[in-house]
Amino acid sequence: MRFESQAACSIQELEQRSIRAGDSVIIDFGGHRTGYLSFKLRATGREADAPVRLRLVFGEVLNDVASPLYPYSAWLSQAWLPEEIITVDDIPQDVRVPRRHAFRFVLLEVIATSKEFAVQVHKVRAHAVTSAPATFNELPTQVPDWVRRVDEVSIATLRDCMQTCFEDGPRRARRLWIGDLRLQAMTSYRVYGNEVDMQLVKRCLYLFAGLPREDGLVNACVYERPRPTYANIVALDYSALYAVVLCEYVVASGDHEAGLDLWPVARRQLELLLQHVGPDGLFSDPGDVWIFIDWADELERSSAMQGVLLFSLQKLLALAQILGLNDEVVQWKVLAQQMQTQARAQYWDTDQQLFVSGEGGQVSCASQAWLVLAGVAPDDLLGAAAVRKAMERADSVKPVTPYLYHYLVEALHSCGDRAGATALLKHYWGGMAELGADTFWEAYNPKDPLHSPYGDSHANSYCHAWSCTPAFFFRETGFFNVL
Amino acid sequence: MRFESQAACSIQELEQRSIRAGDSVIIDFGGHRTGYLSFKLRATGREADAPVRLRLVFGEVLNDVASPLYPYSAWLSQAWLPEEIITVDDIPQDVRVPRRHAFRFVLLEVIATSKEFAVQVHKVRAHAVTSAPATFNELPTQVPDWVRRVDEVSIATLRDCMQTCFEDGPRRARRLWIGDLRLQAMTSYRVYGNEVDMQLVKRCLYLFAGLPREDGLVNACVYERPRPTYANIVALDYSALYAVVLCEYVVASGDHEAGLDLWPVARRQLELLLQHVGPDGLFSDPGDVWIFIDWADELERSSAMQGVLLFSLQKLLALAQILGLNDEVVQWKVLAQQMQTQARAQYWDTDQQLFVSGEGGQVSCASQAWLVLAGVAPDDLLGAAAVRKAMERADSVKPVTPYLYHYLVEALHSCGDRAGATALLKHYWGGMAELGADTFWEAYNPKDPLHSPYGDSHANSYCHAWSCTPAFFFRETGFFNVL
Repeated sequence: MRFESQAACSIQELEQRSIRAGDSVIIDFGGHRTGYLSFKLRATGREADAPVRLRLVFGEVLNDVASPLYPYSAWLSQAWLPEEIITVDDIPQDVRVPRRHAFRFVLLEVIATSKEFAVQVHKVRAHAVTSAPATFNELPTQVPDWVRRVDEVSIATLRDCMQTCFEDGPRRARRLWIGDLRLQAMTSYRVYGNEVDMQLVKRCLYLFAGLPREDGLVNACVYERPRPTYANIVALDYSALYAVVLCEYVVASGDHEAGLDLWPVARRQLELLLQHVGPDGLFSDPGDVWIFIDWADELERSSAMQGVLLFSLQKLLALAQILGLNDEVVQWKVLAQQMQTQARAQYWDTDQQLFVSGEGGQVSCASQAWLVLAGVAPDDLLGAAAVRKAMERADSVKPVTPYLYHYLVEALHSCGDRAGATALLKHYWGGMAELGADTFWEAYNPKDPLHSPYGDSHANSYCHAWSCTPAFFFRETGFFNVL
Repeated sequence: MRFESQAACSIQELEQRSIRAGDSVIIDFGGHRTGYLSFKLRATGREADAPVRLRLVFGEVLNDVASPLYPYSAWLSQAWLPEEIITVDDIPQDVRVPRRHAFRFVLLEVIATSKEFAVQVHKVRAHAVTSAPATFNELPTQVPDWVRRVDEVSIATLRDCMQTCFEDGPRRARRLWIGDLRLQAMTSYRVYGNEVDMQLVKRCLYLFAGLPREDGLVNACVYERPRPTYANIVALDYSALYAVVLCEYVVASGDHEAGLDLWPVARRQLELLLQHVGPDGLFSDPGDVWIFIDWADELERSSAMQGVLLFSLQKLLALAQILGLNDEVVQWKVLAQQMQTQARAQYWDTDQQLFVSGEGGQVSCASQAWLVLAGVAPDDLLGAAAVRKAMERADSVKPVTPYLYHYLVEALHSCGDRAGATALLKHYWGGMAELGADTFWEAYNPKDPLHSPYGDSHANSYCHAWSCTPAFFFRETGFFNVL
């Protein structure tokens, strides 16, 4: 992670130090939080006879505050850089930075005072904000250390993303994405799991439902501020997952009322998406709409999308069953069966014992994850083996986001391969934890931890919702048997 | 003034323009104000998908926004530079810059958006704040144009410095100095002149009275924020002027109650200061305390200080008379007479028909101004001539601040030399007005308008209390006879 920290002094000692113009300090809060910074600014030397201009940089990881923000080379807006220039007119003064930040570290640089005085910072505080409850379902006491740590970090990640909606990450956009929402929701049911806490999932489901594209397809992402609006970004796989989130919400909460209310929205997604499934039962990429799956550019997405669509259709059928709406989906039961059969016939390569995708027969982890999860593999043993094999093969397209890593673990888990799921979880999330993560990251390449999908690690979010699911897996019944 | 402005578009047209990252605009409010900036920030192109980071520079004069602030070479704190970096998270958004600024111009630079959108600024507003009344005593309608303009600018200067105290200037320290207070108070009596408006003078008198040095000498300067405190700067001439301000306040307001309440403070100043007057009736510089008079380094201050002290003593005696406290100052009446006689004997050079100062017999405008004002000149004609002569002589120490220019005009005026006073006023304040001043400046050298006593014109205050007195002179009875 490029930097190591060495404590210069305690926070009590810091309060005694005079910081002159040109000097800076890095304050380590010892853990990640989403929230606000406050401190008292005092003058030393003589009475302050000028304002104080400060530069503050908020760091989720040490690299954020230890390496210069500029020159900035990401293609994401430079306005995301977590930096504030503030001028404090009247010293002594209580300072509260008005913008919310996601941080463990704060670099405080004194840009200017007068020559007559220096400053001291007192009572430095991080005011954490979250809509997560203070208590959660604890793990059994006897779990291994790495599990305990990964679980803590998972829960911190979930907590710091739980605000007025499930944010994808508190550092940048703070937006609600369907893909992230599913992982946050399923984890929150296990970690918190009482009805009140599920209200946040419900709120998010309604936000998406209230802000669809003209034809009814839900947007991949909505913003809450300054007023609820959609980002005008549609991803076919994310639209499909709306039905998954709704089904799992109804199962977890028993809230049939919301289920019935939102049923038309979930059904509409499948109606629209299944238009891209031909008479052969296979999804055909229309080419003009984004399919996310993972950030890997070279990924051939058609077979993975077949898996997402089938998985979502299966969840919709399950939801119809729960809500007593079977009559509405009679024809889709047949279609689901056909999609499964055809996908196996088309994508399962009997020689390789793997799913392939596209004309070149690309082998990708994404295809294995989603088709296995949709039950397309010949059986659980072969499904789990396909996932593991794809991860091991040198020539396969590997996952680049924790989001897809999650689905690999979920696929293994769905096949009952707890050992495989645990090993992958330990390798990936355990790897981040070993590198000192306080919250799990938006992007993590075990071979290049500071790699950024944006072209600059200062653009990365280091507390990212789609990384929070280890706490889900740890709480699945019996998951600990193999730990 | 180095720059000329050319209108690029109207403010209505500006609202239609998209401003991209890297672009900037200068907004001209058409006049100076002390206050707050607000605007609405909108996105153009598509929905804003990132924050907007802006840089704002507030300019009292065009040079502030047209020439780069950096590198900054003044010895005053760089934190005074009127610059803000703000990040606006949720667009569209109403933005109100929380810090108060003094400005006519605002440079708005878009540092960063995303590549997806640009911004528009709508409803740009300057919210002026002042404690000055909205109406004032108008000049007669037939005054010359230059008088009308200089008067407007004077009143704008006074208005923008009148806040919760009489600030020296709204751009930087916003502090209350006794020297500035006297000029603001005397001008405000003429310009506004009703009892309620005089409450601000009273408030300032009490602020100084409540925050003296240990021995009772009032500080030259006090701050109001974050709590009333003194700057620990004493200037002997400023302490003396406390009695002048109090006397003139009681005369203008008839507020004998405050006069009696504050009498001990005024008397204490003279008690302490007259300790530096020897048996010869002459002030002797103790050398360890600041004497301001003017910023000119080479100025020999002893004779000018004799004038300040005598003038202040005369005002104290007048105050005693008004308050019925003559008994308390019997011995000082004699002393005042002696100080006047001795000063004339010592400092009036009969050959040159001028006051001189110090061992080298320095001829300075400051000496003429203060000794004439204290009635030390042999007569009014000689006094006025001495002031004019000192201004004309190549080898005299010239004034460098509007503060001393004021006392030159006041000295001429006190001798009944209205033509001389008017000519000087027109030359100096009229000169600033011709250069486009909306408010009068802290420093103005007619031969080098952008000269800074601080080493960088960006440190100068261009709305400075001690420059506001033309509006006083214009309202003196009969002053217009010679215009």
